[in-house]
Amino acid sequence: MLKPPNPICDDIRALATGTQTAVSLAKRALDRAAGAAALNAFVTIDPGHVLAQAEASDARRKAGTPLSAIDGLAIAFKDNYLTVDYPTTACSDARPLEPGGMDATVVARLRAAGAVVFGKTNMHEWAYGATNTTSNIGKTNNPHNTDHITGGSSGGSAAAVAAGIVTVAMGSDTGGSIRIPASACGIYGFKPSYGRASRYGVLPLSWSLDATGPIATSLDAIAAILPIILGPDPNDVSTHTAVTFQTQEPPANVKIINLVGPGLERTGDVDACLRLALGRLSADVEDRELAGVRHYFAAWEAILHCEASSYHAELLARNPTGFSSVTRAHLEAGKELRAVEVLHAQKLRARLIKTLLSEFGNWDVLCLPTLPVTAPRHGDDWQEFGGRRVSTQDAMTWFCWIGNLAGLPCLTLPIGTGTSGLPVGMMLMGRPGEDEKLLAIGQQVDEQLGAGSGTDG
Amino acid sequence: MLKPPNPICDDIRALATGTQTAVSLAKRALDRAAGAAALNAFVTIDPGHVLAQAEASDARRKAGTPLSAIDGLAIAFKDNYLTVDYPTTACSDARPLEPGGMDATVVARLRAAGAVVFGKTNMHEWAYGATNTTSNIGKTNNPHNTDHITGGSSGGSAAAVAAGIVTVAMGSDTGGSIRIPASACGIYGFKPSYGRASRYGVLPLSWSLDATGPIATSLDAIAAILPIILGPDPNDVSTHTAVTFQTQEPPANVKIINLVGPGLERTGDVDACLRLALGRLSADVEDRELAGVRHYFAAWEAILHCEASSYHAELLARNPTGFSSVTRAHLEAGKELRAVEVLHAQKLRARLIKTLLSEFGNWDVLCLPTLPVTAPRHGDDWQEFGGRRVSTQDAMTWFCWIGNLAGLPCLTLPIGTGTSGLPVGMMLMGRPGEDEKLLAIGQQVDEQLGAGSGTDG
Repeated sequence: MLKPPNPICDDIRALATGTQTAVSLAKRALDRAAGAAALNAFVTIDPGHVLAQAEASDARRKAGTPLSAIDGLAIAFKDNYLTVDYPTTACSDARPLEPGGMDATVVARLRAAGAVVFGKTNMHEWAYGATNTTSNIGKTNNPHNTDHITGGSSGGSAAAVAAGIVTVAMGSDTGGSIRIPASACGIYGFKPSYGRASRYGVLPLSWSLDATGPIATSLDAIAAILPIILGPDPNDVSTHTAVTFQTQEPPANVKIINLVGPGLERTGDVDACLRLALGRLSADVEDRELAGVRHYFAAWEAILHCEASSYHAELLARNPTGFSSVTRAHLEAGKELRAVEVLHAQKLRARLIKTLLSEFGNWDVLCLPTLPVTAPRHGDDWQEFGGRRVSTQDAMTWFCWIGNLAGLPCLTLPIGTGTSGLPVGMMLMGRPGEDEKLLAIGQQVDEQLGAGSGTDG
Repeated sequence: MLKPPNPICDDIRALATGTQTAVSLAKRALDRAAGAAALNAFVTIDPGHVLAQAEASDARRKAGTPLSAIDGLAIAFKDNYLTVDYPTTACSDARPLEPGGMDATVVARLRAAGAVVFGKTNMHEWAYGATNTTSNIGKTNNPHNTDHITGGSSGGSAAAVAAGIVTVAMGSDTGGSIRIPASACGIYGFKPSYGRASRYGVLPLSWSLDATGPIATSLDAIAAILPIILGPDPNDVSTHTAVTFQTQEPPANVKIINLVGPGLERTGDVDACLRLALGRLSADVEDRELAGVRHYFAAWEAILHCEASSYHAELLARNPTGFSSVTRAHLEAGKELRAVEVLHAQKLRARLIKTLLSEFGNWDVLCLPTLPVTAPRHGDDWQEFGGRRVSTQDAMTWFCWIGNLAGLPCLTLPIGTGTSGLPVGMMLMGRPGEDEKLLAIGQQVDEQLGAGSGTDG
């Protein structure tokens, strides 16, 4: 069960050559979902509706009119993506939405490309947390070891992919919510640059940090999705200068800055795994410290909390007990932040961007472990590493928030396992807007390491 | 004294033809400044330094190497523009700056064009008010009647121009601080689009609202200044997409939306003066209401207050008694604003922009009186008009803040006098970035009304 299926190109090839049909792929996915019910990865799946979509896809292929290369591919969506055919709950009782309203722009684009909308995945309530343990349908379990968390907040999407149910599941990412569970579950995740993929119709956490993106079994699968979802959307003002995806070759000499030092601690096994991987790459790798990194982290937190409290203010007033007590406490606390504190946080954000993009000189990608630890055990609320003792929540976002605060494109790829036997991920971050270059470098890195080297089975 | 001198083109022509020298113009300006000392328009003038600059200009002309058409023109600067040759106080005791540091970008550009930096003008302390009555050198007096205020916060610059001392004085504008005193003193003022003129080296009030721009005896004078000051400045990130000024012709059929209705009240004489002027224009004028206008005003206030408190936080902690008690109270109060309130204000700002730029359809300029009243008498803290009773501070900014909150280019031109015998101004606002079109329409309007028709003498 733990070995992900072949890269999406195989599924696409199978659909193109007729060795698989959309219906046979959908049936395989439904069977695997049923067999992996213990993961609690899904909020809703409608098998009849899945098969009906697959049949329509097969009819298009038969007629010689497939909508795109991914026509017939089953894709799962985090339960904060609005969908006309499934309810949307954000895994909260506060405001469940019936189907029939609208598709999020990203859903609409994938559906228009022939994707089979497979179901809605479990998530941390309102995406306000990185463990996937706070959810009105209960916690999500890691396919590698169900005693461990998936991380979140797109934990159901990651579990569904890692369990081989779907090859692609969509997530959203405000401080790592795509990359954290992808890394913890030993698969791939991609957060586009801020403003390159529409968030319209995806219930927000923090509008100046949020991104939508895919979690998948391979970077090839991600490469098939990005051209469909990247680009401008008049309904999301952040995308008004977004350009569509144009495949690039990796640069001849890749310059990697490996971020290290105080504030960027990680466990010994995670660090060893990353060092080993970096040593195998044909790239110029330079270690560099980022001064004041935990101050920038506090800035990210302040911006996130006040934007979340602003977005939820009306609903919190109307239906306070619809939220879990922990989410409600976050939202109440966020209302107390003062404007001058958040303006200071925005100044720190500007300073971080200037430091990374100017003062760090020329680099192609920044590198960090995706997580400082492997997936924690359920119930372990604290993590210890590098002389620090931090909450599991903070450990999950320990590195990932940098990409959101600075608006960078980021990906995670599996590079091995830690002493727990659970996956370790490498995070690569590009310059804003250089999503194509980042993906090309990621594919080259993955190839040099042996694709999927970090996954079990 | 009250009649402004001829348009700058005459001075420029006089310099070019040799009927005046920079020194003769500088001496005239120094004489007039001495004669108008009762206005309290200036913080500092150094006659020797002014004459030395003028002599250097004349030497360049004599050598056939003038730096630009304005080489030799005396320009005064509001005392929040940093200058290497004059101290900068922002008319506050909180942090007086000695000369020798740096020129603000706008000062440096005008100096590089040969301008004679004439002196620094009186202003409302830290630009945090619109009356010019709070200043560590005392209030500024209106050249039309010294019992009346100039309005502010660039009141000294407006008084210096209206008294014929200089043909151009620079101001800054966060909610009308260029336009308010220009209107109250019967002259011309221009606030560029947000992000087209550098604010670097100009002590800020609110960085997302502030603009720099000229106050002058004519729109011709303003037309000579804008090409020098508009354009990108690497030291002011808001200008990174700014383009330089390119003279335009006015459009063939000008469409003016005249904003009226609840929340946009004005006195009967001001309204009559504006109606009379609009009736004389060859333009398509449509009256239109702006729903919720006072809510947008509250949003402007919230953004201004928290940004001002953020900027001054360190200085306020270090030297609280350096500020006047009223400015200190503003800064203390601004610290208490909550982030969710300011985020709500930013949402209202986005809604205002959408309403004006999209829902109002095609228009070339929006029109309002610049002020709802003529210049109030010193000591009159309240104004009554249209069934409202508002503070003189709020009356001064009653209309002007719209241009700052929406980032629009704005100008004011004199169109007559009210029952008090004091000037009335017309405000025209363009679409963001359309500064050239706004100026061209303003010049056409001014010509149709008879240039300078509103000024005494």
